[in-house]
Amino acid sequence: MENKIRVGIVGYGNLGRGVESAIKQNDDMSLVAIFSRRDPASVAVNDPEVKVLHISAAEEYVNEIDVMILCGGSATDLPEQGPLFAKLFNTIDSFDTHAKITEYFETVDQSATAGGKTSIISVGWDPGLFSINRLMGEAILPEGGTYTFWGKGLSQGHSDAIRRIKGVKGGVQYTIPVEEAIERVRNGENPELSTKEKHSRECFVVAEEGADLAKIEQEIKTMPNYFADYDTTVHFISEEELAKNHSKMPHGGFVIRSGKTGVDNNQIIEFSLKLDSNPEFTSSVLVAYARAAVRMNKEGQAGAKSVFDVPPAYLSKKSAAQLRKELL
Amino acid sequence: MENKIRVGIVGYGNLGRGVESAIKQNDDMSLVAIFSRRDPASVAVNDPEVKVLHISAAEEYVNEIDVMILCGGSATDLPEQGPLFAKLFNTIDSFDTHAKITEYFETVDQSATAGGKTSIISVGWDPGLFSINRLMGEAILPEGGTYTFWGKGLSQGHSDAIRRIKGVKGGVQYTIPVEEAIERVRNGENPELSTKEKHSRECFVVAEEGADLAKIEQEIKTMPNYFADYDTTVHFISEEELAKNHSKMPHGGFVIRSGKTGVDNNQIIEFSLKLDSNPEFTSSVLVAYARAAVRMNKEGQAGAKSVFDVPPAYLSKKSAAQLRKELL
Repeated sequence: MENKIRVGIVGYGNLGRGVESAIKQNDDMSLVAIFSRRDPASVAVNDPEVKVLHISAAEEYVNEIDVMILCGGSATDLPEQGPLFAKLFNTIDSFDTHAKITEYFETVDQSATAGGKTSIISVGWDPGLFSINRLMGEAILPEGGTYTFWGKGLSQGHSDAIRRIKGVKGGVQYTIPVEEAIERVRNGENPELSTKEKHSRECFVVAEEGADLAKIEQEIKTMPNYFADYDTTVHFISEEELAKNHSKMPHGGFVIRSGKTGVDNNQIIEFSLKLDSNPEFTSSVLVAYARAAVRMNKEGQAGAKSVFDVPPAYLSKKSAAQLRKELL
Repeated sequence: MENKIRVGIVGYGNLGRGVESAIKQNDDMSLVAIFSRRDPASVAVNDPEVKVLHISAAEEYVNEIDVMILCGGSATDLPEQGPLFAKLFNTIDSFDTHAKITEYFETVDQSATAGGKTSIISVGWDPGLFSINRLMGEAILPEGGTYTFWGKGLSQGHSDAIRRIKGVKGGVQYTIPVEEAIERVRNGENPELSTKEKHSRECFVVAEEGADLAKIEQEIKTMPNYFADYDTTVHFISEEELAKNHSKMPHGGFVIRSGKTGVDNNQIIEFSLKLDSNPEFTSSVLVAYARAAVRMNKEGQAGAKSVFDVPPAYLSKKSAAQLRKELL
């Protein structure tokens, strides 16, 4: 493979680090540079050979980078960076604020179309692979229900909420799918289930010395939106235990489509993920879609896209003939 | 929805019947006619309103049918009908002789390209949805292994093999995935497993009166290719029991991609199906891809395609904006 796909990374947190690592697993790609808002000298990259530059230098690389993977957050980074970079580069991002996807898509689409670039937004596993499975399940089995379960996995947002409570030194929260609910869905019962009936929440909390544990537990369990509606368990643990057993970022979940065909035949489609590292997996998905963005752009498919617009073949480095022979 | 997609069916066995039924679940589609090699008067359709015609009349319908779903078998029907119909119609088929897919694709591609039509071949669940998951698993997690398990499900080929044995009046064979093997894969062990280590075979046999049961069992268990290499169980049952408990055609299976990212993180992607009716589910997949074939053809994408070439959005009747809003 002579002409490698030249990739740039914008933002070097957990996701950016994951992308750096995923690119190494793909021999048809090479990492050109990491762009950060921080002082480049202060950014400690995994591989010291990798070039780190200030984000303001990105524009100088328009002819040296085929696709830019935007690894910022959805709250403040991507709404700004997405449209900005889409004018100059093919881009991939993991924008995941579901309620704002329509608006974000439009803004990125304008920029990408103006620049003749291809931007695939909301890539990852949810939104992303889970979305594809929701779409395909519904299209194949029109009469039925779709169920998304998350977990067991670490929720960053809920962990942050715990840590903001007075007297809490550290802590993590796991979202856990309710096994009985999954079983009912798998059995084709098509139950009506709200998010809180499908999930419970388990918290591991390190309290400050002398803190009122009962009060902390009460505050967690009654926190509106985050915990109040859920079956929530709180465990107090030591700082050592937190560091030893709860420093990974596992996640996963299930998308189940339960439909009926013919007279009364149940048909169940299930897609699931069991991830040791949520950010590393998301990064791996981003990198596969980076390949697709470059190819779509070469074919003249400019503008914003989602995972729904990408033919599976475009994710692979193999030729169409090879894919048909080996994997069909 | 004013302009419905006008569908034709070629061949009216289990699959054709399933397609007839699936079209009714999709309000953007209408069934124009069923074409059969049999005398149309002898074909008993589920819905007596549906037009049944001799296959030789198909050519007269080129302007009245947007897509023809070919429901014949892969052994003799499709190799002949595929290229023939691809010249005249957009087509969908479920060609599943893995070893001959390359050759079949080329022949259909020539016809479809010549006729300016779009033909999606090898649609269903394997080949089909399972193939997509094998491709995506490998593209997203390049360092790892892919495992396909089939079952629990009725195998037509193995059931036929049993029924050819002297002294056997009737019988069915179920392919059963080995639970321990699945667990090892799910645990990220990446074991080396042959097809026979992943599956066992269970047979339910009705013997003719006075037949030598021990001999039949021995013949089944030692049959080369079909049973000899597998852990095979044989149960002799009554004709009534066969009719009562073994007349459905359930099937299913699993595609598991087990990969590693970062330093040593296991990532597991699993796709599974649990189907009460194998032919009805396959039919439902064919119908969704029929929608895609029509759309691809309108866009000028003529020639043979596989499921690898189809963007997920093309399977749905919803608009791109609606899909992003509701399912992304």
